This record gives sequence, C-alpha cells and structure tokens, in this order.
Amino acid sequence: MKSSHFTRIGVIGAGQLGRMLALAGFPLGLSTTFLDRRADTPGAAVAPIVTGDFEDPERLAELAARSDVLTFDWENFPAASLQGLRKLIPIRPSPDCLKVSQDRVQEKALFTRLKIPVAAHAAVGDLTDLCAAMRRIGTPGVLKTRRLGYDGKGQVLIRDPAGAAAAVASLGGCDLVYERLQRFTREVSIIGARSSAGRAVFYPLAANTHAQGILRFSVAPYVNAALERTATVYLKRVMNALDYVGVLALEFFVVGGRLVANEMAPRVHNSGHWTIEGCVTSQFENHVRAVSGLPLGSTRPLGHAAMINFLGTLPDPEPLLRIEGLAYHDYGKVPRPGRKLGHCTILKSRAKDRNLALENALKLVGWT
Amino acid sequence: MKSSHFTRIGVIGAGQLGRMLALAGFPLGLSTTFLDRRADTPGAAVAPIVTGDFEDPERLAELAARSDVLTFDWENFPAASLQGLRKLIPIRPSPDCLKVSQDRVQEKALFTRLKIPVAAHAAVGDLTDLCAAMRRIGTPGVLKTRRLGYDGKGQVLIRDPAGAAAAVASLGGCDLVYERLQRFTREVSIIGARSSAGRAVFYPLAANTHAQGILRFSVAPYVNAALERTATVYLKRVMNALDYVGVLALEFFVVGGRLVANEMAPRVHNSGHWTIEGCVTSQFENHVRAVSGLPLGSTRPLGHAAMINFLGTLPDPEPLLRIEGLAYHDYGKVPRPGRKLGHCTILKSRAKDRNLALENALKLVGWT
Repeated sequence: MKSSHFTRIGVIGAGQLGRMLALAGFPLGLSTTFLDRRADTPGAAVAPIVTGDFEDPERLAELAARSDVLTFDWENFPAASLQGLRKLIPIRPSPDCLKVSQDRVQEKALFTRLKIPVAAHAAVGDLTDLCAAMRRIGTPGVLKTRRLGYDGKGQVLIRDPAGAAAAVASLGGCDLVYERLQRFTREVSIIGARSSAGRAVFYPLAANTHAQGILRFSVAPYVNAALERTATVYLKRVMNALDYVGVLALEFFVVGGRLVANEMAPRVHNSGHWTIEGCVTSQFENHVRAVSGLPLGSTRPLGHAAMINFLGTLPDPEPLLRIEGLAYHDYGKVPRPGRKLGHCTILKSRAKDRNLALENALKLVGWT
Repeated sequence: MKSSHFTRIGVIGAGQLGRMLALAGFPLGLSTTFLDRRADTPGAAVAPIVTGDFEDPERLAELAARSDVLTFDWENFPAASLQGLRKLIPIRPSPDCLKVSQDRVQEKALFTRLKIPVAAHAAVGDLTDLCAAMRRIGTPGVLKTRRLGYDGKGQVLIRDPAGAAAAVASLGGCDLVYERLQRFTREVSIIGARSSAGRAVFYPLAANTHAQGILRFSVAPYVNAALERTATVYLKRVMNALDYVGVLALEFFVVGGRLVANEMAPRVHNSGHWTIEGCVTSQFENHVRAVSGLPLGSTRPLGHAAMINFLGTLPDPEPLLRIEGLAYHDYGKVPRPGRKLGHCTILKSRAKDRNLALENALKLVGWT
C-alpha cells in the first residue's frame, strides 16, 4: 500500500545541506541522488552522485532521469540552466523562486511589494550611480554584488563618500546594490516549510550571531512573541507570493525593535540546523517531505537549543560530547580556513541551562 | 585536533538495526562497514558491505581490516567464530557477552547469580528430562530452544503433561529449556549503554505489547518509578558482571507487581526505537558512541512516546504523517508475511495526547 508521493529526490549541490537532506530522507524511504562538481563532497559520502557542472545540460538531464523531483542545496548557479528541465521533472522550489533570491534588487522589490520593511537601497551600475545613491540614502552603507554573494562574500562597507571608488573597484564592475548600513541590535531568522498543497508550518525564531559575515552561533527559540508573529506573517507572504514549495528562510535585522528584512534563502538554512535535535521535525525532514509531496511535520520545539558552527577546524568531539545534551555534526569536509566543517547543537529543558552550556561549548570551540 | 576514538565501525549484520546504527554514526563522523549474507539488506542501502557468511573467517578478517572496532546488530551466529578475531581488533560488546545471551540456560544462571528473579526453569535434553522438569516446576509452561530463538521462534506452549512428547518433537531434539509460564500483567524492557570506561546511562522503562511473540508496539516512558529503579539496578548488575560495552536491553515480565527477567539482548533493541525521536540521544547514537570510545549522551526523554512496528506490509505514510508528532521509518526491505519492515514513533508533550495518537495510528497500521 504505497502512496503517490515522489520517492527519488535529485539534489543539485552535495554540500552539508544536501547531506543532511539525504540523511533525513532515509527513514522516510526517500532516496537521494546528488549533482555536484566533485565526488568528495559531504553528500556523496551518504548517497550516489552525478559529477559535473551545475549548468551542464547533460548532467542535469542525467540527474533528472534518476529522480522523480529536483531540489537544490545551493542557490548560486544560474536559475536559467533549470528552465529546460521544467518540462521534464518537477523542480521544488521553482526556478522562479531561485531567480528572485539570486538578485538582491529583485528580492528587495518583492519584499517592498509585500510590505516587508527593507533597508534604504539603490541598484548601482557604476560609480556615478553609487555617488547618487549615497547622496540620497546617506552613509555609512554596504555595497554588495546583486548576485552570487553568500557568507559575507561580495560585500564591502563604505564609511563615507571618499571610499566609493575603491569599493566599486574591489567588487569588480558587477551589477551592484548600495544599502544603508543597519544599526541593528540583533539578527534573527525565521524558517518555514510550505507543501505543494499550500499548507505551511513555521519554526520558532532564531537569534543569530555573525562575525566576518559568517554565522557563528544561533540560539532558538529566540523568545519574542511579537517579533515571531511578525516574522511569520512576512515569511508567509513571501511563500504565498512565490507559490513556494519546500523550506524557505528569511533573515532580518532588528532595528529599533522592528524587523528589517535582509535576505532570503530558498533552501534549508544554517540557522535552522538546531531543528534536527531541537524540534519534533527538522527543517531537513520538512524540506524532503514538502518536495516529495508528503504531509509536513510538527515544528514544535523540544526545549531550548543553541547551534555553534565549526569553521576552519573541527574541535575535538570528546570534551564537547561531555556537555549534557550536546550533539556533534561532522560534515566530512577537508579543513580550510573559514570553511564550515560541522556544527554542534545543545538542547536543554531550561533556557538558563542552555545559556551556560553554550558558553562552555563556545570556549571549547574557540569562540571566546 | 582529533581525539583518539575509533572512527571506522564494522557491524556484523546489516539489518534495520545496523542501518540505524550507520545513520546515527554519520553526524559523528563515524563510518560503518557491514558484513551480511546479502547485499540487498537495509544497512547496505546506506553504507558499504562485505557480503559473506557471518562465520566465514576470511570475510570477518576483511571486515576487521576495514574497521577499527567491531560490533553486531544480530546475535544469532556462533560467538566462537569471533574468538580468532579478538587478537586483531576490539569487539564491543565482547564475544563472551554474546555467548551468555545466546544460551537461555547460561543467561538465567547469570541472572540468578546476580539476584535477578527469573521464572522457575530447567535445562531439558530429552523427554525424560522434560517430564521431570514438569513435575518439579508444574504446568503450564513454555519449552524453548536454548539457542537461536528470536521473535517467538523456537518456542512452544505446553498446557499439560500430555503435550510433552509433541512439544519436544516440534523443536527437533535441540538443547531445550522448560520454563514455568508467567502470568504477567505487563511486559517491560530497560535499555542502557555502558562505555569502555565503565560509565553507564539508562533510558526510561518501556512497556511492550507483543502478539505471536513479535513486538507490536511500545509505550515509553512507562511511568513507574519503583519498577524503573529496580530494572535499572538489575541492568547495571548485568553490565558490570559482563564488563559490557555498548547498548544492552533487558526484558521483563511484571508478575504480581514484581519484575521477572525474561531475556537480554546484547545490542540495540526494538523496544528502544522510540529513543530516536523521544530522547536527547538515541540508543543507536549511544551504541556507536560507546563502541567508538566517545562519551555517552543524555538519555533524557523529550516527551511521551510510542512506537509501532510495521509487520508484513508497509502502511501508506501519508495518513500516518498527518498525525502531529509522528515520524515514519521505512527500512527498505522486501515485504514478507510477519517481517519487520519499518516502524513509526509518536512524540507528544502529554501522555494523554500520546495515547490518543497511538490509538489513531494503530488503526491506520491495522492493529485493531
């Protein structure tokens, strides 16, 4: 007695996100095949892989032939390369969602249309545009590439007008966007999943601490009912506008007690890794459930959680695992400075205990 | 900065238990290699396998060469076949533990030595022995093979002395044991894990419902502080007596409010599957942590859980997954009458809600 859901998921990108998607799929009887440039990727250690370029039509067709539905764990490849595949196989979320999220200007236009606050910003093609934008919006600000930025890459801070020319030069003539720098008190993110039938579930808000543009640790649930309610409303608007299927993440700055949307990620998100241990159903399981057409699972939190990224080096698991309620995740990657090699999650029944354990773990990880 | 724990685990047997061990190992950076007779086993879908007989010294040596430490997901193969390997590689738990658990008479002798109550019983070599045992112990009773019994196989109920000859004949001249039938009100099991340093952790008690000798469903925690305390003390005695490393399960009958030990399983156990979703650290993760030399994780329950086995046919996942807090596990096995093909776990914050959801799920699974 088998239902009509898809059971073979093709995942474009075989990084740690893909790996955790595949691991979430096994118990549900869902099999994963990856496409990635290299066979020594984290995903390939747990499921089969087609090796080749993300834009190679033949490799994409091979992935499609081995799958019932496609999704991705990485959004920095041209959405256009998926256009031809759409007739062959469902792609969830759709390439249109990918396209919007790939362009900071389109993304902000969508947020604005949906009445989701964003930072004052302007598209910038050259130095003249930038100077006009700076006059209108003011300084300090951040100049970003419109496309292909992640983990703080493709961004430069401009403190005053004198830095304009150097900033444009450092980003090398791409399409750019200039944004007013946000004086935020906190960074938070909301993650939700939407099924193909349009049903959506939402995780509790997470509070995120970055350094050099990379997420260092998250604490969740970040208990603030008003912000969580507003973030959920915003995420729901984006999901419905895009007829989104799968997990979607939305990052915000908290500025003067109000949410200002920073960016969205059309995939499972680093700030949701805590949901593996911290919620009834993880973001990874809910993504594969949504993509394969299965009902979504409960996002109820099981306690107070924190997640710490392992960047550049993997800490010794032994002292960390002595912390009660700590789970260790090694992605099986070759160490490289700044590279995300793994993470750990702490789960406690009381926020106070979570905070203490987080402090101890941060010391062991070396974020002091 | 890597610690000195073992990272390559060889697992003898690639059934669903091995599969769940391998899945628990991935996040910890532990890799699994299986040995099993067939390559279409549940474990082989998630990790590499050496195919061959459990008793084949060459295949065992090949498994050992690809591993840092050996364990097993199946105990019904001759413990003697592991003796030669002990000099080559650590085996956890040790073949001695396996040997005791493989012989119901040795097992009961150990329990008795450790002052753990067991049913009145006698070793039986032939019909004369059986008749003497029945006179001494009384009827009704159960005649069981001393070795290689599982899931109710190798057992026959004897209601009165007239059935003795037929019972011996039906079990075919093996070494046997006759036990007084226990009029129990409930079957419960306790599961714990012990590290190589001798530290032990214990899961909450589970209440198990069997039919035709096969576990149908478990409910946990089974809240009874006095029984749980006693069961924990008994399990600890067995672990220490055997210098046990890994997960060990002990099954009891509750007879007149007291625990009577039925049998032990020197491995992860079906009645502990609920710990994947229901506890901070699952029995599978704690077994691989113990075997690889990592610190043991917290066994704290995250709510009120139930587990239902899928036997013979896999139920449609869609209606089941609509039950809030239900997780579905498909082992990827070919259906066969009575075969364990998967299970589901329900996790709720209140026992009342768990009981209601369990009733609904039992109907969908067809255990009405």
